[in-house]
Amino acid sequence: MKRLKAIIMYDGFGFAGYQIQPNARTVQHELEKVLTKMHKGMNVRVVASGRTDAGVHAIGQVIHFDTALQFPITRWQRALNVQLPGDIRVLSVEEVSSDFHARYGTIGKVYRYKWGLGDVESPFKRHYVVHAPGFKPDIQRMREAAQSFLGTHDFTSFCSARTEVIDRVRTIKRLELIENDEDELHMVIEGDGFLYNMVRIIAGNLWEVGIGRREPSEMSVMLAAEDRKRAGKTAPAQGLYLESVFYVD
Amino acid sequence: MKRLKAIIMYDGFGFAGYQIQPNARTVQHELEKVLTKMHKGMNVRVVASGRTDAGVHAIGQVIHFDTALQFPITRWQRALNVQLPGDIRVLSVEEVSSDFHARYGTIGKVYRYKWGLGDVESPFKRHYVVHAPGFKPDIQRMREAAQSFLGTHDFTSFCSARTEVIDRVRTIKRLELIENDEDELHMVIEGDGFLYNMVRIIAGNLWEVGIGRREPSEMSVMLAAEDRKRAGKTAPAQGLYLESVFYVD
Repeated sequence: MKRLKAIIMYDGFGFAGYQIQPNARTVQHELEKVLTKMHKGMNVRVVASGRTDAGVHAIGQVIHFDTALQFPITRWQRALNVQLPGDIRVLSVEEVSSDFHARYGTIGKVYRYKWGLGDVESPFKRHYVVHAPGFKPDIQRMREAAQSFLGTHDFTSFCSARTEVIDRVRTIKRLELIENDEDELHMVIEGDGFLYNMVRIIAGNLWEVGIGRREPSEMSVMLAAEDRKRAGKTAPAQGLYLESVFYVD
Repeated sequence: MKRLKAIIMYDGFGFAGYQIQPNARTVQHELEKVLTKMHKGMNVRVVASGRTDAGVHAIGQVIHFDTALQFPITRWQRALNVQLPGDIRVLSVEEVSSDFHARYGTIGKVYRYKWGLGDVESPFKRHYVVHAPGFKPDIQRMREAAQSFLGTHDFTSFCSARTEVIDRVRTIKRLELIENDEDELHMVIEGDGFLYNMVRIIAGNLWEVGIGRREPSEMSVMLAAEDRKRAGKTAPAQGLYLESVFYVD
């Protein structure tokens, strides 16, 4: 038996999210279906760095699974991609030690949130960026507000009220707002871990600052309140990408 | 009665092509449905610069239609976009003289064809670029082959055998192969007009040159043959974009 770690990418549009649930198309189900077939019907369980919600995309999701199959590590990527649907791709597969754990071993993650800023919403991006034609956010104000999230804070105000985790203290190492030449604004956020909906609630609040509905100074006040009801809206799922996941080497 | 010209964009993935046909979702049908509703049920006919096939995209398709509605020209774009589905967007609307004709008035068009060159096909681009993982085309060879198409030629070998047009002489002004930083190769082609499937057949043949299945010198031989059976494959629809349409000022 050996443990394999894979980096995968998926278009979240066609999925009810990462995690298996009855009567819904999920990323985990598609992965396990292919692996179980490769293992002649023996059920293979896939563990991911974390779940992603319906409509959320991944560029660098990390998974692990155990296998007794003997074929060479170099063949795995292609073998999986041939059988997986086109909206999931495996970018790499490597053998790791049996104590590697895709979920419990994470020491950091990077997420990206994409907004479209053009006058007209591109038909090609409607499932991949969040677009509010007519709104022109003040990016300097958003950058000012973003400063409040850097460092270590209790993020109770910035996670779903349904969050079950008790310890809501997380550290944000990087929070950048970047404009690109395709009329998009990206928020790139790196932290040691993220609570449920945390990235989308931070994105939603920064957007509200950008369009003048909130002041940059409100962010610190909301954080201090430790109450989800005090912070603004959760940004829509289709703008969110899990970009990379870090582990101890 | 006045005549309006509009520039529109659409994601071809969800359409059975531009032109109306029974029991199929088409761009023309969606446009006419919205316009007919705006005209209280009076049927409005939309004329485009030309049809596009199922799966083919447009960045700058041009249409015209006639209307007796009195509201200001500046409101039209938004009025249409509010009612159209998200995979069609109107980029501009202007009033033109009653002798403007979106189809018969064209003096040139630009098409773009997109190939993906990365090692893995991006899940986000599977309906928007054509990807053959594993193939690395020799772009210099493609550029050499492209030279044969420049200028005025009879394109009988490079249009569908079903083409009904008698005069197959067309002039290609520009044919460029451009790599971008997203691991894509684009063919940009400008001509005074294009026959049915002509851009996709040229793209298919240039690709075959790129991957070594044909020699650049074969292009001139094929053109001279004036026989569709002599040229190679038609490239898939999802890589093709109608980029712009030109008219006499």
